[in-house]
Amino acid sequence: MSRKTKNILFIMFDQLRFDYLSCYGHPHLHTPNMDRLAEQGVRFTNVYCQSPACGPSRMSFYTGRYVDSHGASTNGFPLRVGEYTLGDHLRKLGMDAYLLGKTHMTPDQEGMARLGLNPDSIIGARVAECGFDIIARDDGLWPEEPDGCYDQSVSPYNSYLKHKGYDSDNPWLEHANAGVEDDGEMASGWFMKHADKPANIREEDSETAFLTTRCMAFIDQQNQPDSSPWLCHLSYIKPHWPYIVPAPYHNMYGQEHRLPVNRSESERANPHPLYQLFMDNMVGKAFRRDEVLEKVVPAYMGLIKQCDDQMGRLFRHLEKTGRMEDTLIAITADHGDYMGDHWLGEKDLFHAPSVKIPLIIYDPSPEADATRGQVCDELVEAIDITATFVEAAGGVLKDHLDHVLEGRSLLPYLHGQPMQWREYAISELDYSVSYANAYLKVPPRAARLFMVADKRWKYVNAASGGFRPLLFDLQNDPDELQDLGTSTEPEHVAAMAAMEQHLNEWSRRFSQRTTVSEQQIRDMPGKSQRRGIILGAFDEGEANPELTIKFFGKVKQRFVEAGS
Amino acid sequence: MSRKTKNILFIMFDQLRFDYLSCYGHPHLHTPNMDRLAEQGVRFTNVYCQSPACGPSRMSFYTGRYVDSHGASTNGFPLRVGEYTLGDHLRKLGMDAYLLGKTHMTPDQEGMARLGLNPDSIIGARVAECGFDIIARDDGLWPEEPDGCYDQSVSPYNSYLKHKGYDSDNPWLEHANAGVEDDGEMASGWFMKHADKPANIREEDSETAFLTTRCMAFIDQQNQPDSSPWLCHLSYIKPHWPYIVPAPYHNMYGQEHRLPVNRSESERANPHPLYQLFMDNMVGKAFRRDEVLEKVVPAYMGLIKQCDDQMGRLFRHLEKTGRMEDTLIAITADHGDYMGDHWLGEKDLFHAPSVKIPLIIYDPSPEADATRGQVCDELVEAIDITATFVEAAGGVLKDHLDHVLEGRSLLPYLHGQPMQWREYAISELDYSVSYANAYLKVPPRAARLFMVADKRWKYVNAASGGFRPLLFDLQNDPDELQDLGTSTEPEHVAAMAAMEQHLNEWSRRFSQRTTVSEQQIRDMPGKSQRRGIILGAFDEGEANPELTIKFFGKVKQRFVEAGS
Repeated sequence: MSRKTKNILFIMFDQLRFDYLSCYGHPHLHTPNMDRLAEQGVRFTNVYCQSPACGPSRMSFYTGRYVDSHGASTNGFPLRVGEYTLGDHLRKLGMDAYLLGKTHMTPDQEGMARLGLNPDSIIGARVAECGFDIIARDDGLWPEEPDGCYDQSVSPYNSYLKHKGYDSDNPWLEHANAGVEDDGEMASGWFMKHADKPANIREEDSETAFLTTRCMAFIDQQNQPDSSPWLCHLSYIKPHWPYIVPAPYHNMYGQEHRLPVNRSESERANPHPLYQLFMDNMVGKAFRRDEVLEKVVPAYMGLIKQCDDQMGRLFRHLEKTGRMEDTLIAITADHGDYMGDHWLGEKDLFHAPSVKIPLIIYDPSPEADATRGQVCDELVEAIDITATFVEAAGGVLKDHLDHVLEGRSLLPYLHGQPMQWREYAISELDYSVSYANAYLKVPPRAARLFMVADKRWKYVNAASGGFRPLLFDLQNDPDELQDLGTSTEPEHVAAMAAMEQHLNEWSRRFSQRTTVSEQQIRDMPGKSQRRGIILGAFDEGEANPELTIKFFGKVKQRFVEAGS
Repeated sequence: MSRKTKNILFIMFDQLRFDYLSCYGHPHLHTPNMDRLAEQGVRFTNVYCQSPACGPSRMSFYTGRYVDSHGASTNGFPLRVGEYTLGDHLRKLGMDAYLLGKTHMTPDQEGMARLGLNPDSIIGARVAECGFDIIARDDGLWPEEPDGCYDQSVSPYNSYLKHKGYDSDNPWLEHANAGVEDDGEMASGWFMKHADKPANIREEDSETAFLTTRCMAFIDQQNQPDSSPWLCHLSYIKPHWPYIVPAPYHNMYGQEHRLPVNRSESERANPHPLYQLFMDNMVGKAFRRDEVLEKVVPAYMGLIKQCDDQMGRLFRHLEKTGRMEDTLIAITADHGDYMGDHWLGEKDLFHAPSVKIPLIIYDPSPEADATRGQVCDELVEAIDITATFVEAAGGVLKDHLDHVLEGRSLLPYLHGQPMQWREYAISELDYSVSYANAYLKVPPRAARLFMVADKRWKYVNAASGGFRPLLFDLQNDPDELQDLGTSTEPEHVAAMAAMEQHLNEWSRRFSQRTTVSEQQIRDMPGKSQRRGIILGAFDEGEANPELTIKFFGKVKQRFVEAGS
């Protein structure tokens, strides 16, 4: 790492669509603060999350490994104890790793119990929190219902709100994520008809502002001459649903500011059976209705606008404290949001609004001056961001860490050096727990999709569940409205075969030999011989004379007669 | 598990070729004790180890998972801390798991340090010893040379020998694995010209007898009315090299008892480049020489004959103590030994003498009466043996443990029930540290071979290293003398394509989602809704009325004006 770059601010927004920032082309949603960071750094336009779902995507960010490698394949599936995390790698390099906000981590309680790891110990806490030291863990979902609380830990955000005078058992539910009807009844943010109401909370106390404030306080605390280098994962909960936003953001956008819905009647004619089921789940049905889009899209835009304003607040603080000069900053998201495109809501599938993520990286070091303001359209995966952080912290990836970290550092590109880009990007979905699979009843281990995309084609393999593939021609159909998965055109057949070949190659990658590096292996041959293992020698003449000191000498006692 | 079956005796011989027992057809090497167990149980004739090398093969036995899944892909590569072992599974089922002998386990010291695991604690010791509680760990290789001892732990066998009066710093080297020249000079077992000399040790003190004696003592100790059920992994070091055997076994066999060497000049004409390098390594060069085979093969047979005699001793003890009536016994090996076949020595590649292993399972339960004496030629993998033990201990594999354990229990077959056999068997080789790769310099992660075999074809994929495949027609060329990997015959091309398809299917198996079982996943859908997560509801009418208790009620305080 250049002497100038000391810290890393790893900012993630939850469910932020890549094209809902003005630097990514949104015509009405102006995000000048993030745009300015893009001008000072590099903006990547072709970035894929490893899975369009919070948990698995994040576990890939936090381990630097594909979902298939770390195994925490959908929300709520624990990350096994044995997986190394970003925090483990950074701490070895002398950098602390802190969390402020959401991770969607589920601890591997059984694995921890097997190894006697106490979650209250430092080691146990890190394992339980996927490698981070916790400033505040807040996954931003604090509802409760007949079976209890969705998140059973104590909400630091609710504690904060109560301290600030919000008089409720669950102010997250009743204030931050609810408006008020004219008659004084609560208007829950769970019901999308309320998305245009202002959340019943002061903007400065909303989740997004709360986390920014906490981050600024963290920066102040660390602003000592002898502070260790740190990575802070500032992980915002928004613009993830519930879709409701505090004033003045709740009515900042109108119908005239919405992007046209990207969908076609042809998509509903004979669709892929899995796509059909996602279109027909409760969310899909909702997001095909105009009344839903009319309420939700402006609220989603308002949430993002608030995020951008909070970025302005944060960046001013970084400038004021001098941290802008020694802090690498990355802004990204765990996945996108369909917002009605392709007749879908939420995420899960592999159309661009769901699987592509924004990525802006600002590197303060002089080496990065050459690329400031550049836009990069090479294929990037989320795990490359992890690799970038580890390299920025001084880690050597090639032959030393690349047996564990599966991504490629973007630092060479940022520093204007040649870079070996990937030929294809992979994303995965485990739909075993989806509503679709409540109908399909595909065995859990077979309920998997693999996306393989290059710049020309996007291919989705659904074979393990017994389904045909999907194919999109990103050049001739950039809106991904025509699934060519049943095409018999030679070009399409050849494209599917080529992508299938990529998938086979990827599936055979060596992902689990995580205890020995490439370099350690290169250094191994010959060692056993020098520790006395002699193979294939008929007599003394065939053994290395240096190594035969233990093979000769009079015996002290005969236990058997020679030749007996 | 049937009430009658209480314990498991898991006997492994190291480097025991499947066809060097009389029950497997050896015409001169009579092994009546193992043959008798086969008559009382079932003998499997088509069993593949997961890798023809000690370490990875054993880690597959001890985890029940493919090498590609557990990642400890060649000798000396540590098994990562996160992997569940046979011992973990059995202890959960109320069965202890003990080790007596060899495992070839290398502890994951870095992973243990990361989690603060002390190898002297019970948990740490189990992690370091791949899940076993240790009676005696002895990997049977105790040489030393300029760089120190090959095995740096304390040898329990050397301690025993010293106690028995063998006056040497390293009696393993100077007595158990060396003979004596006429002039009183030590004749090291490392030099194969000495293989016909008797080892300078009393037979009762040799490694094979030592482990048997320890096992008999263990059985006596456990023979209490309130003893817990146990698995004992009695893991012999022999007939692995050094090839030298105590009297009277050293001269029990002559040249007339050797199997004809299975090799053909045609194998040396234009061979696969990797095969060429293995033929030309020091061991390959040695085992093509008559003088080597003349010395080594009779010694190897003597070692096996001694093993069989020790089995007789052990089985008599089991009968005497009543353990024959409540102990499931399996006899197998980690891999075979070429013994000059195919111009090779040692193991590593996938010809039958190397990759096939013997397997005899005796189940004392009445359910197994139906199959006593049967011979099964279905495709079996080493990991099936692990699955069999777990099921015999009462574990439910399907939907409960099969997200971790990748093998299939053989118990249904043993009990005369229908069984879904595998269509193809997989075995793997990591040749990154081999002498071949000292020439080839294939990047370590690419130095891999995958064998896919069914009953008709054996296919070896070497593509990651840049090499063509190998193919053998097991029906028309049962001796595997003709590599069809370059054939353009339609039948061969089709066979290779079919095997490649199997390999692709296998490569995409879901091997790392080890924290959630199939059954747990099936039980999941709907849980988040009952904990307050409502997705896709426009208004109250679309939410489940049971679940809306928290969505209504007068707000206690307005923080913003409605519609502001």
